[in-house]
Amino acid sequence: MRILIIGAGGTIGKRLTPALQQRHEIITAGRNSGDVRVDVSSKESMVMLFEQVKNIDACICIAASGPLDNFQTLTEEQLLEDMKGKFFGQVNLVLIGQHFLNAGGSFTLTSGVFADQPGKGVTGGGVTSGALHSFVLSAAIELENGLRINCVSPGMAEDSTKDFGHLFPELKPVAMTRLVEAYTASVEGGKTGEIFRVY
Amino acid sequence: MRILIIGAGGTIGKRLTPALQQRHEIITAGRNSGDVRVDVSSKESMVMLFEQVKNIDACICIAASGPLDNFQTLTEEQLLEDMKGKFFGQVNLVLIGQHFLNAGGSFTLTSGVFADQPGKGVTGGGVTSGALHSFVLSAAIELENGLRINCVSPGMAEDSTKDFGHLFPELKPVAMTRLVEAYTASVEGGKTGEIFRVY
Repeated sequence: MRILIIGAGGTIGKRLTPALQQRHEIITAGRNSGDVRVDVSSKESMVMLFEQVKNIDACICIAASGPLDNFQTLTEEQLLEDMKGKFFGQVNLVLIGQHFLNAGGSFTLTSGVFADQPGKGVTGGGVTSGALHSFVLSAAIELENGLRINCVSPGMAEDSTKDFGHLFPELKPVAMTRLVEAYTASVEGGKTGEIFRVY
Repeated sequence: MRILIIGAGGTIGKRLTPALQQRHEIITAGRNSGDVRVDVSSKESMVMLFEQVKNIDACICIAASGPLDNFQTLTEEQLLEDMKGKFFGQVNLVLIGQHFLNAGGSFTLTSGVFADQPGKGVTGGGVTSGALHSFVLSAAIELENGLRINCVSPGMAEDSTKDFGHLFPELKPVAMTRLVEAYTASVEGGKTGEIFRVY
């Protein structure tokens, strides 16, 4: 398969990319690194990406998390800003990418544990991921040309505990191999509309 | 209890309001009807509502559904527009209302079945409801002063089948009494962070 990985240089991408490279042709894309540059918060940038990188069988997006928020002072504007890249960016990737991917291709998006298990100071993260889950369910029954879509919802990735573990002591670290397995199952398996909860 | 019901004149509100009136003092609010006028898509209108109607123990919002969409031509802008009233409106109700409700008070929001069970042409509705579910989970652990928050996720309300039943033949009609019971349990019971799925 010819697989486009957006965010290949991140915590999960660094583990996933070499694993998939053993069996597939990989094109990496990122804001500041990768074979191609893309800004997932820009629709124009996304269209340019797909016009540049053709003949894609699978598109994986490993989007990063947003900032912390304070519920007592949180505003609609801030919540919308929090949702821009990870929610609307990934939505755009699918809405635009559906017209470019090879028939029978797949999208694999990234949400997060806070959709199901709230944490203090991550209302924006929870809402982003909850919206993504419902988007994936809807998209799975709407996509044409045999396109599939799934989502991996990571808990606290083991490789992130050093930087972020102290913020969420209630989350047990998740082995990186489990995350790699979930993305791989989404791409290589036949499922669609699946939320791979890796908690 | 002194209960504010937004959307009291709608399909569910018409059944819920008289049921709660038997035991509680009810203030109704709506865009075009009710004791007080409010536009849930306007933050200013919401602030005016809470400054006008004081001493509230429970705030119920029965928000209506959005328009149908076409996934092949759906855009980020349209999705955001779909989320304006029902998602961002209800979010604003809580973010603003948390500073006005009586201690120990409660919010009861309204989402919908498409968060969990996608339907053709309702990606906007699904995303709105999925985001609301995660918002309610987060808000439940963030709210102070003993405030509670729950959400009722209605399926196809029996009284709506005449108008909308033909659009979603896969949804079985839900008896109005079951919906009234869910809102009542949210207001009168002790639960918080609960999604009452009435399917």
